[in-house]
Amino acid sequence: MHILIIGAAGMVGRKLVNALIAEGRLGGTDITALTLSDIVAPEKPHTAIPVEAIATDLSAPGAAETLIAARPDLIFHLAAIVSGEAEADFDKGYRINLDGTRLLLEAIRQEGLRQPYRPRLVFSSSIAVFGEPLPPVIPDDQAHTPLTSYGTQKAIGELLLADYSRRGFLDGIGIRLPTIVVRPGKPNKAASGFFSGIIREPLAGLEAVLPVDDSVRHWFASPRAAIGFLLHAATLDTAPLGQRRTLTMPGLSATVGEQIAALEKLAGPRAVSLIRRERDETIAAIVAGWPQNFDAGRAIALGFRAETDFEQIIRAHMEDERGQGGGA
Amino acid sequence: MHILIIGAAGMVGRKLVNALIAEGRLGGTDITALTLSDIVAPEKPHTAIPVEAIATDLSAPGAAETLIAARPDLIFHLAAIVSGEAEADFDKGYRINLDGTRLLLEAIRQEGLRQPYRPRLVFSSSIAVFGEPLPPVIPDDQAHTPLTSYGTQKAIGELLLADYSRRGFLDGIGIRLPTIVVRPGKPNKAASGFFSGIIREPLAGLEAVLPVDDSVRHWFASPRAAIGFLLHAATLDTAPLGQRRTLTMPGLSATVGEQIAALEKLAGPRAVSLIRRERDETIAAIVAGWPQNFDAGRAIALGFRAETDFEQIIRAHMEDERGQGGGA
Repeated sequence: MHILIIGAAGMVGRKLVNALIAEGRLGGTDITALTLSDIVAPEKPHTAIPVEAIATDLSAPGAAETLIAARPDLIFHLAAIVSGEAEADFDKGYRINLDGTRLLLEAIRQEGLRQPYRPRLVFSSSIAVFGEPLPPVIPDDQAHTPLTSYGTQKAIGELLLADYSRRGFLDGIGIRLPTIVVRPGKPNKAASGFFSGIIREPLAGLEAVLPVDDSVRHWFASPRAAIGFLLHAATLDTAPLGQRRTLTMPGLSATVGEQIAALEKLAGPRAVSLIRRERDETIAAIVAGWPQNFDAGRAIALGFRAETDFEQIIRAHMEDERGQGGGA
Repeated sequence: MHILIIGAAGMVGRKLVNALIAEGRLGGTDITALTLSDIVAPEKPHTAIPVEAIATDLSAPGAAETLIAARPDLIFHLAAIVSGEAEADFDKGYRINLDGTRLLLEAIRQEGLRQPYRPRLVFSSSIAVFGEPLPPVIPDDQAHTPLTSYGTQKAIGELLLADYSRRGFLDGIGIRLPTIVVRPGKPNKAASGFFSGIIREPLAGLEAVLPVDDSVRHWFASPRAAIGFLLHAATLDTAPLGQRRTLTMPGLSATVGEQIAALEKLAGPRAVSLIRRERDETIAAIVAGWPQNFDAGRAIALGFRAETDFEQIIRAHMEDERGQGGGA
């Protein structure tokens, strides 16, 4: 099985590569080749599996065709300009997130017109396809009313994925990821960054700023759960999806207060004391419009699994990023 | 006020042009110029208003820029490859319905970057954005699960319209038209053609074929009502729309049996006897997946109005197309 990962240099992409290499096989089939693509050349992992690492702008003419010419059996499309940047740079967001995705789908279709070809395509969508007004618990078939250009581009990607799949050009599945915490690495400027920061920094003995109230509720899964979603999406039977090719992934609805309580349980009051409350009205206003809870029953029925309490999410971080066990 | 109509040579486009010319003004403002565009040059109507009629392929490079360079105050975007053709010719459907629409939006944005410009854009969408499984009465915020490439392209158009409006590049409003009956002219091969044919042909003393059961229910409005929707959308205050820029238009949910009963009331049993029942399994299967009824409460609250019984729809046809009064 030849696997292509587009967006392989990002946090989720790198973890996905590591998981695939660690296993060496997927769905009972040996992985015979890995092609890793991103806007910068992804790092080549140590493995006996032949790996090609390519720097590609998916929206550049011919880029998608080049990736697809090797006829990978399975494609993960994780590449995206993130929300804040797509909002700040309208052209770039549409170019990468809409044109890039469409060029990929079209390259697959054109390859299939030359010689039968219908790869599995796993597309990472986002809960940003949803926007206010929203019910307290958002069903899988909630109408898409994105409030950002990024959300618009992901919603269009879902529509294209469904139509190309319906026409038999590819076997697509989209997964709407929860907000991923605890993100490893340095603090970033994303509005959602503090959800990870208030766990990651105190665990490292560093101060973290909390810009919103403890009562703020949001929808989470660990990076480990996200990799699990991708691997499951790559191998499951897509027939039961019908025309509804994209699924809201399971996650954990938790408040900031519940995050902090879990941190205290695992790392003690000393860690919690490193969280400095410093309200930021801009961030608070952005986060107030975000979804709080989802009914992911459809994905759960299809076998997708996420954490069910925030301690599990913190433990996954400690185990995966810090080589620590359950203790502080 | 300079008005641009894209898709002006179609049935709805021609009626819209006639309505604008008959009135000479819109929303209290004189119409000072009309630009009529379509894939073939629209007929130039007789009027004192300066009219330019242009043959344009909206998806051709520079076509949208040329139309927008004159900075029309109001734009009706009615051009589309219809459902059957978009399904038969995948490339053509995406080129006209998706690329054409996006190039138009982008030309407006680029014009506004040169010099402030934010025209009203009325976009004709379709109930084809919805697909099974559907509730018996479809709400305005039903999730989009199109079952055709045409529906996919219209759903994408709605998303783009909302994002470009949110960003302030234009003042967009989308309207999802019911199936328009009674269509004037000759029978066509659209799967929905018989809904018009079983009224139009008998009124003209001709035989019509009915390929489905009398119990089939669908969602209708007259061409006259459709023109009313477009004119109202052109002038209403869009502020109450918020981010939900596209509305399902009001219509009439009626069965084929109710259509025939209305025909009998207005034209007698002789007209009804011209309807020949000849079941077509292909058409019956297509129509079985179509929506039957909508809750258009949002559009009605905003002042959109349609017929409330099928006799009104037939009378509108007799008055507008045959110069006849209410009688047979």
